[in-house]
Amino acid sequence: MAPSLLQRKKKMEKNIKKELHRYFSQFLTKKRQEKIKKNLPKRTRHVAVALEDLYQSGNTSAILRTADALGVQDVHCIEGRNQFDVNNGISLGSAKWLTVDRYRTENNQTNNATQECIESLKNQGYKVVATSPHAVKPLSSLPIEDKTVFLFGTEDQGLTEQAIDLADDSVEIPMYGFVESFNVSVSVALCLYDFTTRLRSSSVAWQLTEEEQLELEIDWMRNSVENADAIERRFFEEMVK
Amino acid sequence: MAPSLLQRKKKMEKNIKKELHRYFSQFLTKKRQEKIKKNLPKRTRHVAVALEDLYQSGNTSAILRTADALGVQDVHCIEGRNQFDVNNGISLGSAKWLTVDRYRTENNQTNNATQECIESLKNQGYKVVATSPHAVKPLSSLPIEDKTVFLFGTEDQGLTEQAIDLADDSVEIPMYGFVESFNVSVSVALCLYDFTTRLRSSSVAWQLTEEEQLELEIDWMRNSVENADAIERRFFEEMVK
Repeated sequence: MAPSLLQRKKKMEKNIKKELHRYFSQFLTKKRQEKIKKNLPKRTRHVAVALEDLYQSGNTSAILRTADALGVQDVHCIEGRNQFDVNNGISLGSAKWLTVDRYRTENNQTNNATQECIESLKNQGYKVVATSPHAVKPLSSLPIEDKTVFLFGTEDQGLTEQAIDLADDSVEIPMYGFVESFNVSVSVALCLYDFTTRLRSSSVAWQLTEEEQLELEIDWMRNSVENADAIERRFFEEMVK
Repeated sequence: MAPSLLQRKKKMEKNIKKELHRYFSQFLTKKRQEKIKKNLPKRTRHVAVALEDLYQSGNTSAILRTADALGVQDVHCIEGRNQFDVNNGISLGSAKWLTVDRYRTENNQTNNATQECIESLKNQGYKVVATSPHAVKPLSSLPIEDKTVFLFGTEDQGLTEQAIDLADDSVEIPMYGFVESFNVSVSVALCLYDFTTRLRSSSVAWQLTEEEQLELEIDWMRNSVENADAIERRFFEEMVK
C-alpha cells in the first residue's frame, strides 16, 4: 500500500527538520554541540512543574534554574495578579533552554487561568499533584509511573482552593521543624529531585521521543547562535531555489 | 562505691535542668509544648551545614528555614568578607530554633575562619564534605553512617580552595542542564533532604541524646516565652531561698 498523503507530509516535515538541524550545526561551536548532545537524552517531559501566581521573580528564576539543572523541560506559569518575570542574575539564562507555558486571565482573576492550565495538563495526560503541608501522602511514596506535574502556589498563601480541588492527588514534603513550610523554590527542588532521582534509575520510559528530541535540539541550536532567524530564513530560501 | 564528686555534680546539674524545665512549662501554651515535644525526637546533630562566606542574606535565611524544617539543628557560618545576616521575611524566625555557630576572622581574611570552623567540626567528630559540581561521587552514594557536615561556598565562586583542601570528601548533585550550578539554598536543601531521608529510615543512631534533648528543650522553651531571662532569674532566686 502506498503511503498516505498525511504520512508523506509527516515524512517530508521530518526531513526538513533534519536538514535544518544539519544547517544550524555549522554555526555552533563544538563545545556547545557537545553540551546539547549530552543534555538531550537526559531531558524529560514525564515530570513537569506548574506555578500558580508566584510574585517573587527571584523564586520563579531559581525554579527555572533548578528545572534546567535537573533536566525537567516544562514549566507552566499560571498568571493571576502576578505576571511571569525572570531575574537573570538568579536564573542564569536557564529560561531559554526550557519550554515555559504561560496561562493568563484577561480580567485579572486567577481562577480561569488556573482551570485552563490544569485542564490543559490533564488533556496532555498528566496527573496533577498539588503540594501541600497538609497532605497525607509523603513525596517519596508518589508513584513515578504516571506522567506527573507538580503544582505549587504563592509564597504566602500556597495554592488556591480551586487548584487543590482540580488536582488529582496531593503530597507533602515531610517537615520536622517549627516553620510550617519550605521556601517555594526549595519545595520545587525537593519534589523534582526526589521524583527524577527515582525516575532515572527506573525502567519507566521518561525520555523524549526521537522526534521531540530533534525539535528541541533545533530550538537549542537557535538559542545558541546569533541571528538565528536570519539563518533559518536563509536555509528556507536556499531550499526553495 | 560512693559516687564521685564529679558524678554528684553532674547529677545535681541534671536535676536543676529538670526543675528549670518544669518551671518554664507553666508559662508555655499547650500547643507550643506539644510542638516542642513533637519536634524534639526528630532533631539531629548527625548531619549539619557549614556556609562559607555567603553574601546574600536571602540565601542564608532560606537555608536556616530549610534546616529547621528538615530537623537539622546545627548551622555553621564562616564569615569572611560577609557577615551572617538574616532576612526574617524569608527565614520565618527559624534562626531561634537552631544552633548557629559563627566563625569570624578579625583581619578580614576568610581563610582563618574557614580553617577554624573545619578543624572545630573535625574535633567534634564530623566528616567534612565539600559540595562541588566537579566532584566524582554523587550525593546519593554518600554513606550516612558517618557524622557528616556539608560545606557550601559563596554564590558566585563556590568554596575556597582552602575549604576544598581541608574537607575529607566531596560530592556533587547530579546535573543534566545548561546551568553549571544550583542556587546555593537549593543545593543545601537537596543535600540535607537526600541525607536525612536516608538517615531517618536507617538504623543509625541519629537522634539527640537524652541530655541534649533536655538542654535543647529548655532553649526552645526560653524562645517561646516573653521575659525568659526574668523567669529564669526568679527560678534561681526561689531555688536558693
